[in-house]
Amino acid sequence: MVKIGIIGYGNLGRGVECAVKQNPDMELTAVFTRRDPKTVTVLTPGVTVASVNDVADWKDKIDVMIICGGSATDLPEQTPAYAKLFNVVDSFDTHARIPEHFANVDASAKAAGKVALISCGWDPGMFSLNRLYANCILPDGKDYTFWGKGVSQGHSDAIRRVPGVKNGKQYTVPVEAALEAVRSGSNPELTTREKHTRECFVVLEEGADAAAVEKAIKTMPNYFADYDTTVHFISEEELARDHAGIPHGGFVIRTGQTGWNKENKHVIEYSLKLDSNPEFTSSVIVAYARAIARLAKEGVSGCKTVFDIAPAYLSPLSGDEIRAHLL
Amino acid sequence: MVKIGIIGYGNLGRGVECAVKQNPDMELTAVFTRRDPKTVTVLTPGVTVASVNDVADWKDKIDVMIICGGSATDLPEQTPAYAKLFNVVDSFDTHARIPEHFANVDASAKAAGKVALISCGWDPGMFSLNRLYANCILPDGKDYTFWGKGVSQGHSDAIRRVPGVKNGKQYTVPVEAALEAVRSGSNPELTTREKHTRECFVVLEEGADAAAVEKAIKTMPNYFADYDTTVHFISEEELARDHAGIPHGGFVIRTGQTGWNKENKHVIEYSLKLDSNPEFTSSVIVAYARAIARLAKEGVSGCKTVFDIAPAYLSPLSGDEIRAHLL
Repeated sequence: MVKIGIIGYGNLGRGVECAVKQNPDMELTAVFTRRDPKTVTVLTPGVTVASVNDVADWKDKIDVMIICGGSATDLPEQTPAYAKLFNVVDSFDTHARIPEHFANVDASAKAAGKVALISCGWDPGMFSLNRLYANCILPDGKDYTFWGKGVSQGHSDAIRRVPGVKNGKQYTVPVEAALEAVRSGSNPELTTREKHTRECFVVLEEGADAAAVEKAIKTMPNYFADYDTTVHFISEEELARDHAGIPHGGFVIRTGQTGWNKENKHVIEYSLKLDSNPEFTSSVIVAYARAIARLAKEGVSGCKTVFDIAPAYLSPLSGDEIRAHLL
Repeated sequence: MVKIGIIGYGNLGRGVECAVKQNPDMELTAVFTRRDPKTVTVLTPGVTVASVNDVADWKDKIDVMIICGGSATDLPEQTPAYAKLFNVVDSFDTHARIPEHFANVDASAKAAGKVALISCGWDPGMFSLNRLYANCILPDGKDYTFWGKGVSQGHSDAIRRVPGVKNGKQYTVPVEAALEAVRSGSNPELTTREKHTRECFVVLEEGADAAAVEKAIKTMPNYFADYDTTVHFISEEELARDHAGIPHGGFVIRTGQTGWNKENKHVIEYSLKLDSNPEFTSSVIVAYARAIARLAKEGVSGCKTVFDIAPAYLSPLSGDEIRAHLL
């Protein structure tokens, strides 16, 4: 049994807990929280909830620690720190800062003889893998990534910071015509506006000016100004009833040419349609936690990404079984 | 530079030659044929064409030998034999015989200190990888594989063996309604007939009985009897004009559930749309040949499959570069 620990019990931590339940070769040992542990109730019977301050006491009781903090401020501190004590997995998703995060985690993990996996999930994660495989197969080609339809947490937060907004949710929507143009192999150059639209569902504060709120959202730099944005005003009840989920997904497409004169076209497409973004991310993380536990047993140390892990390490099945049934 | 050799210069061998040209870190060293080498002209200037009987002379001049024989009778003999002399890659695709082929190649390669990769391409190959990843991520779920629209060589051969048929080509076509049912997450149980249709383009011999030919095709056991099959009679000119290509493709879809009570559904889909089946297969093989050359340098020996190769080994880029640009 692979003994799993979770640091941080939000949507992602709960998703990890659910994914561990679906994998019979894994068990959840403890959940660590920054809150008062007495105020946190987990779903799995018999699992300890402890303070994150006591995590060092669990050094020899956990095979893989899954760090479920945020990428902005938590993970850059947490992952290098906990990699000194545990084999760890995180879902660090600030693409631009991955090289720096990798270097920090690698130094910690190597010094401690631990193995760490960063940036695990679907983007970065499964989408990255598909970009890599497709680039290696079709060196002459072009990559496209589309996201959605799905809830963007960052854009939803941005809406909620607009004066007059009580609550809100934002969906990123890929433009179907752009997807079709890409799939045709015509290698279109697409602007930001041509690739995605943004759809906002907003609950106003009592007496707020709807027109002013709509304008503030649509013109917000970085978040909305470069997109065609639609704003729908709804009630708090409608928001709770129709927009409680956290769906997401997207498409990674590479088109390319082969042949002596590049006369043949090919389209490689990978897509996800997810009812729950955090639960799917956690499911990827838990499969990779199995790989990390195995690498640790082999004496491997240092920081890894999904690029460095042979796919067979993710499976509970033996090499004979996967060759017979999945090859 | 990775020095590549090719054994067998048919569609697949020519595809490998084209793919090597697209990868600046690789070079084609020699092509080996069972024919008289003087009768074989390759595309790449300066490349030796030699008899397959002289292949042992090239033992130290080739990093990876790509064996482009057929799965029915060639590869079961060739791959274990050549793995005694070279690091090798093949595209063995008789799924049921993979365990036996793996064992034979593994024994040869281990004894010789060589590394071998079998069953490389897209199915087996990229489709297998996607089945494995999706199964590990969503342990509670169901797999679906659809092929086409594309030319089935085996079914085209079967048509051409029917008395009265001068020439013919068969397309395997996935049923759109079945694909949609799968994508909906409804986990349908689909019969063979519900998943694919078969479309045949047939050139009759002078004076042949069209009705008899059509009946012979449509009722042929294993190949057509279990499918809805359409037969079109066309001229040799139309066949040459409209059906000269070897397109193929397909879809690997896994649907599954996550959540404490399995309340959330997810769809993972991987698809290929290929103008040239052999050129795409060769492109996958050549990317993996790079990985095999690296593993050989690391002193690895024995038989591998795509499941055993960490994705980073396929890329000409460094770890730093792929983390910065593709993660």
